[in-house]
Amino acid sequence: MDVSLLGLGRMGTGIARSLLRAGHRVTVYNRTRERAEALRPDGAVVAPSVADACRNDVVLTMLADDSALEGLVFGGRGILASLPRGGMHVSLSTIGVALSDKLAVEHAKVGQGYVAAPVFGRPEAAEAGRLAVVAAGPDPLIQKCKPLFEALGPNLYLAGSRPSLANVVKLSGNFLIASVLESLAEAIAFARKSGVDASSLLNFLTAGLFNAPVYKTYGNLIVQGQHEPAGFLLPLGLKDIRLILQAAEAASVPMPVASVLRDRFITAMARGNQEKDWSVIGRIAAEDAGLA
Amino acid sequence: MDVSLLGLGRMGTGIARSLLRAGHRVTVYNRTRERAEALRPDGAVVAPSVADACRNDVVLTMLADDSALEGLVFGGRGILASLPRGGMHVSLSTIGVALSDKLAVEHAKVGQGYVAAPVFGRPEAAEAGRLAVVAAGPDPLIQKCKPLFEALGPNLYLAGSRPSLANVVKLSGNFLIASVLESLAEAIAFARKSGVDASSLLNFLTAGLFNAPVYKTYGNLIVQGQHEPAGFLLPLGLKDIRLILQAAEAASVPMPVASVLRDRFITAMARGNQEKDWSVIGRIAAEDAGLA
Repeated sequence: MDVSLLGLGRMGTGIARSLLRAGHRVTVYNRTRERAEALRPDGAVVAPSVADACRNDVVLTMLADDSALEGLVFGGRGILASLPRGGMHVSLSTIGVALSDKLAVEHAKVGQGYVAAPVFGRPEAAEAGRLAVVAAGPDPLIQKCKPLFEALGPNLYLAGSRPSLANVVKLSGNFLIASVLESLAEAIAFARKSGVDASSLLNFLTAGLFNAPVYKTYGNLIVQGQHEPAGFLLPLGLKDIRLILQAAEAASVPMPVASVLRDRFITAMARGNQEKDWSVIGRIAAEDAGLA
Repeated sequence: MDVSLLGLGRMGTGIARSLLRAGHRVTVYNRTRERAEALRPDGAVVAPSVADACRNDVVLTMLADDSALEGLVFGGRGILASLPRGGMHVSLSTIGVALSDKLAVEHAKVGQGYVAAPVFGRPEAAEAGRLAVVAAGPDPLIQKCKPLFEALGPNLYLAGSRPSLANVVKLSGNFLIASVLESLAEAIAFARKSGVDASSLLNFLTAGLFNAPVYKTYGNLIVQGQHEPAGFLLPLGLKDIRLILQAAEAASVPMPVASVLRDRFITAMARGNQEKDWSVIGRIAAEDAGLA
């Protein structure tokens, strides 16, 4: 189908390629145009402006955070002003629950559809069409999007008819991953300082009870202290913990482990790890235990 | 081989049966004798006292906590006094690092061997010979124990020559499991209160990133609110978190998530869940969010 994709960071670029490979006709837009031009050889059409990109009925966005998306949607000549009545905005970004609710209301006011469809997976998975998609929104819109979701990856979870439910699921998942990072970091720091070989410990744990991709991938990054290149930047991890704490406070749900995680991410920022992968919080536990 | 097993709770009873099934000649002892007598039909010999059980060269212990094991080892006519020179004590219990170090010293003083070999797995796994064994101690002793470990389960991890390294690994593993319980509990409480179906959320998470036995087993218990019968009692969970915090403090390793877990387990105790499975901390997060 004809679709536009706005926001060409590492995730957006991978997603554009997966859509093109699946046979969709993709128009791309990015604030710094070079990243859009780089997709021409793959068959993308480059839109010179947001308004031009909104000539397609279906517009996907993949932005870094709430404020970037708000600027793109609500700004002058933005998506809200440019998308035709009956058009649809599909937000793939990991944004807050409150902003997702606001987008649903504002798009509806002008006769546009809105679906939230955040994704799980690192940039390589976006490129390979191996993302997991969590989608929520009115059923007719979801059905219309299905060929797009199928291009992004085989695993689709429908969270309900209220779009922000998808954001709740995405934030819950990222919170669980961050909890794995921190608990592994603490266990590995304790084991190392006690004289246990961290690498063989990890192999043992991930051969049995913790035989899951998240423990294997991040456990190895923490044991090896390898946090570059970043698959997911530390500041984005902090942002997601902030978003879940905001949404949880709004819903009156205390989350004590999330509060600990927030402080750990802030500590990691304070120690100059802005450009590192969020698994760098593994290093904080080691440093705080006096390990090199 | 000829071996004695002292301590016949649910774990010890299952282990006795697995040893007998593998062809070992097993003498059993338990303070309340009925639990020992119950193993006669399986082929066990019942020892009337600790001293009688110590006539075998190899003595396994599976007690509930540090003080129970200390009483059995250091008490009058206990293991230390009764085991012959050249005999070996294999501690399967989840005990503290400091006590394990003390046992190594005291057994060595009287010419006895000591191996720490705590196990991962619930009572059904003990019964089925499907435990994971973490063993540490001098290599000749470990080699001698291997046929016993093979009877307990297929997965053996050798943590080093200092016995307490096995206890470090076991406590690290239980801390990681408890972290899973608490982070799942917080995520599920947040998702439920936000309107997401918890059961389908769990299915989605455990189909991908969190595709591991620990998330499936405990996630279902938390989603269904099913915490009886207890596979692992709440007070034992609290004990293990206390033990890792003690050992981590002794090693100067701060563990902020473990500190949160300690408070959660204490809250669960205060709310009258002493007889429940430790997954009952999943209920604390729900209660604190005002969910029924």
